[in-house]
Order: sequence, then structure tokens, then C-alpha cells
Amino acid sequence: MRIERLAIIGVGLIGGSLARALRAADAVGEVIGCGRSAANLERAVALGVIDRFTHDPAAAVTGADTVFIAVPLGAMRGVFEAIRGHLDDGAIITDGGSVKGSVIADAEAAFGGVPPRFVPGHPIAGTERSGVESSFAELYRQRRVILTPVENTDPEALARVEAMWGVCGAEVTRMSPGHHDEVLAATSHLPHMLAFSLVDSLARMKENDEIFRFAAGGFSDFTRIASSSPVMWRDICLANRGPLRSVIKRFAGELHDLAAALDAGDGDRLLAIFERAKAARDRYAGNDRKASS
Amino acid sequence: MRIERLAIIGVGLIGGSLARALRAADAVGEVIGCGRSAANLERAVALGVIDRFTHDPAAAVTGADTVFIAVPLGAMRGVFEAIRGHLDDGAIITDGGSVKGSVIADAEAAFGGVPPRFVPGHPIAGTERSGVESSFAELYRQRRVILTPVENTDPEALARVEAMWGVCGAEVTRMSPGHHDEVLAATSHLPHMLAFSLVDSLARMKENDEIFRFAAGGFSDFTRIASSSPVMWRDICLANRGPLRSVIKRFAGELHDLAAALDAGDGDRLLAIFERAKAARDRYAGNDRKASS
Repeated sequence: MRIERLAIIGVGLIGGSLARALRAADAVGEVIGCGRSAANLERAVALGVIDRFTHDPAAAVTGADTVFIAVPLGAMRGVFEAIRGHLDDGAIITDGGSVKGSVIADAEAAFGGVPPRFVPGHPIAGTERSGVESSFAELYRQRRVILTPVENTDPEALARVEAMWGVCGAEVTRMSPGHHDEVLAATSHLPHMLAFSLVDSLARMKENDEIFRFAAGGFSDFTRIASSSPVMWRDICLANRGPLRSVIKRFAGELHDLAAALDAGDGDRLLAIFERAKAARDRYAGNDRKASS
Repeated sequence: MRIERLAIIGVGLIGGSLARALRAADAVGEVIGCGRSAANLERAVALGVIDRFTHDPAAAVTGADTVFIAVPLGAMRGVFEAIRGHLDDGAIITDGGSVKGSVIADAEAAFGGVPPRFVPGHPIAGTERSGVESSFAELYRQRRVILTPVENTDPEALARVEAMWGVCGAEVTRMSPGHHDEVLAATSHLPHMLAFSLVDSLARMKENDEIFRFAAGGFSDFTRIASSSPVMWRDICLANRGPLRSVIKRFAGELHDLAAALDAGDGDRLLAIFERAKAARDRYAGNDRKASS
């Protein structure tokens, strides 16, 4: 597996880490970066993440055999429209968007049909930080990448994207776009909503200075994801509205049950919830430790 | 500040760490442990956390000048009843319970009035682990301890308990019991409810194996507190029912607003929530880093 020229549209944590990982594995020739902020792109050159840059997606993809799009979901369609007609024959396109249904719909709208050599993907990795400064070559190691091919996806393009992520140390899984969006709504989008809402709700309390002063222990870990990029998360919410609304509603029901158990002073019911949760979390943490060792 | 004989009722993370911190500061003579599990108490002796132990609270407090009670809230009243009539004249009692209203009510019921030399307290520190094995001398360093004296609390007893926590490196604050319970409902009890509920709700989904397999990044931090002791949390919930119910209801309202913004596709409203939350979280994390450096 070797990429001669990789175009990265959006050189942040996700795009930058892919470039670094491929470079570390000596699996890429030239890397062209594309984005809006000259300062960020200059920093990416200085860090050795990309070789050169342009602000024009069309110029970036010209001559590239592989194109990776890692922009916020709200900017996907514009990028697809900008590169249409400028791709080399045989160039493979893939992306890192956290919602797959919306990205596929954007590609369909921009290209008048999902291009066979576009492989929709989602690396399940990241931190609460953003920008090329936060990128690192090991981000994807032993992390999962979900690819969500559609009916007309070219099997060879799919195989090459799988191989690319394999080189970065990731474990690649295939899934339907709809199933991906439901799973991620539950495991990622809902937790982010809870963390953002909790911190916002505490911050809007009159005594908010005091409130945060007495937060400790688990609070810092629990709310870390509330430091994530607001724009990225606005876009994810809008792009995955349907599944996210369902899980929020189901979760609000869980809270209602919990409040009812409190009202009734039903300690057994509370204990049952907490014990099931602890068992599942301990099991998950055990697996997670195994996976990262 | 020196304690000649300290009785610790409940030798787990909280009680064990207090003993270790006082020993490390050479501020305590003898430490007597009391609890139900002989294995845990034997381990505590082997680790040098306590000098000797008994299963009888009355025997443990006899001859002690300071008594620290760190049992789950549901066991507080039983401990107060067991030690009543066995305390030395002048012995100071304090506790580590996460809810103050209920502990004060338990003391009142057991002693027929809150004893003047009982200083209700709450060290805001802990991890998701429990048991004496998890205890360490630095747990309270630069952490806050809230003391909630009542009208008849002896000022000298209060000063001694303040000094004891100061020796452990903690910052001591005074607050009314009711205010303490409201603040903690928002900053600690609610986050734990959200983490427990989320993990339980995911675990009960049909595809729960898959769900957890694709959880990553922030999920592990976000759900860490769901590994906390179920019995301890059942007791906290029951003891702080009123304030906890209020914050759960307010939070359910926040989720409702979020769902409405999603329904309306109102990106500006979502962005405003996420930006306020990120600003508050980043500010908090900055202060937290300063506090622990």
C-alpha cells in the first residue's frame, strides 16, 4: 500500500494525524494540505505534516491519487462541489465525517450520484483538542475505523482505503451508513450533548463560580468532552438530527425513571441501575485496557 | 496539631487516605480501624494504614481523642448509635459523608441532639475506586474540604478539624449543610446519575456488545464515574433526594430544549449552548490545572 500524492482537505487533528501516521509508515509520497487558515497550514508545513498547501480544493486534488476530506460536516458539500471535475481518473476519495448519512447525501447532491471511488469513512478517534498542533501519528493505533460503502462503491477503492487505515494501525469495520449513525448517536453524540448541557446549565447558575470551585474528582473527566469544538458539534447535531433526537428522548425517559425511583425512595431500583452500569463500565474498561496494551 | 489516638470507622479510600496523610505528616499517634470486613482491615494493618482493628465501633472509639466516620451514608446512624455513651469526654467526631443534611439528622436522632463536638464534614476528593488498597496520602492535597457546622458546634472542635484537614494539604471551607447539599447535587450527584444512566441505558440495548465496541475517545473519561460504588451512590441518592430531584428535573428541561433546537434545525441555538459550555469548561480546566500544580 503506497499513496503517491495525498490531498488533505482540512488539516486539523484528524487530517493531520492521518498524514503523520502515513509518513511514519513511509506509505506516502507528497502531502498537499488545503484549508482556510494560512497560519494553520504554515504551521502544518513547519511541523512536517504537509509538504505544501493551497486554499483551493480544486488545485489541491489535481494530480492526487488519494483525497482525504476532514472538514466539519457543514463544509462537506462545498468541498465536494469545489473538487467536482478536478479529480484525476482513478483518484480515491474518502472522509472522516462523524455522520455518514449526511456526507453521502452531500456527495450525491454535489456529484449527481455517489461517486464509485468515494469511500465514506469515520475513524473513531479524537481528543477534545483540535487543530494541526494536536495531531499525532499514533492517534489511530488500535482505534476503530468504520467504512460505510454504498451499493455502487468500487471494491478496489474500498480495499485501498482499508489498507490505508491498516497502515495507520487502525482496525477497520464495515457497516451500513444508517446503522453507523445510530450507533454513534448513542455512544458519542449523546455523551457530548450531556456534557455540553451539564456544563452550560451549571455555568448559567447564579453561583456558578462557587459551583465550579466545588466540582472535583470525576467532574473533570466527565466534562472533558465539553471542551470540544462547538462548530464541529453543531454540524454533527444538525447532520444526525433523527437518530440523535431518538437517543435524547430515550435518555430523558431514563432520567424520568430515575427521578421516579428517587420520589419513591426505591433504593433497590437505584441499586439495580447502578450495579448494571458499574458491571458494564468495568467490563468495557477491561476490554479497553486490553485493546490499548 | 496532633492527634494522639484516631479511630477510623470505615477504612476505605476516604478513611484510609486520611490515616495515611496524617501519618505522612507525623500528626497522629495510634490509628484504630473499625469495619466489617476482616480481610480489608487486615490489609489495612499490613499496608501500615492502621495499627490495629476491631469490628466494634464502641471499642474503637474508647480512648480516642478523634473519631472519623467514613461509612456509606446508610450506615451512619447505626454507627452513631453504636458509639453513643462510649466516647471519651472531649473526643471530637467528624465524618466524610457526601450529604450533610442526612448525617446531621442521623446524629440528632442517635444522640438526641447534635453533639457540640461533632463537626460534619465532606472532603471533595475521591476516585472511582474504593477500599483501603486505593487509599493514598496525597488524596486531599489541594482538594477542598467543606465543613458544615451547626448552631451549637463547639468552635474549638471546629478549629481542630480544620487543622486536621490543613495538615493533609486540603483547603477548608465552611458552608451551611443545606447549601452544601444543593451545590453537591449539581456538581457531583447529577453527573454521577448521568453517567450511571447512560451506561445502563447502552448496556440494555440489544446490540450492547457492538455499542461498547464503537465507543471511544471521550467515552472512557465520560463514563469513568459509572464505575463508582453502587451502594455508596444508592445511599447518597436517598440521602439527598430533594436537591437531587430538583437538579435532575432542571437538567431534563435542558435536554428538552436541546431536542427542540434539534427539531427546529436551530444551529445558532446549538452553537450558543456549546460555546458557553466550552468557555466554562476551559476556564474550569485552567483553574483546576493551576490548583493542582
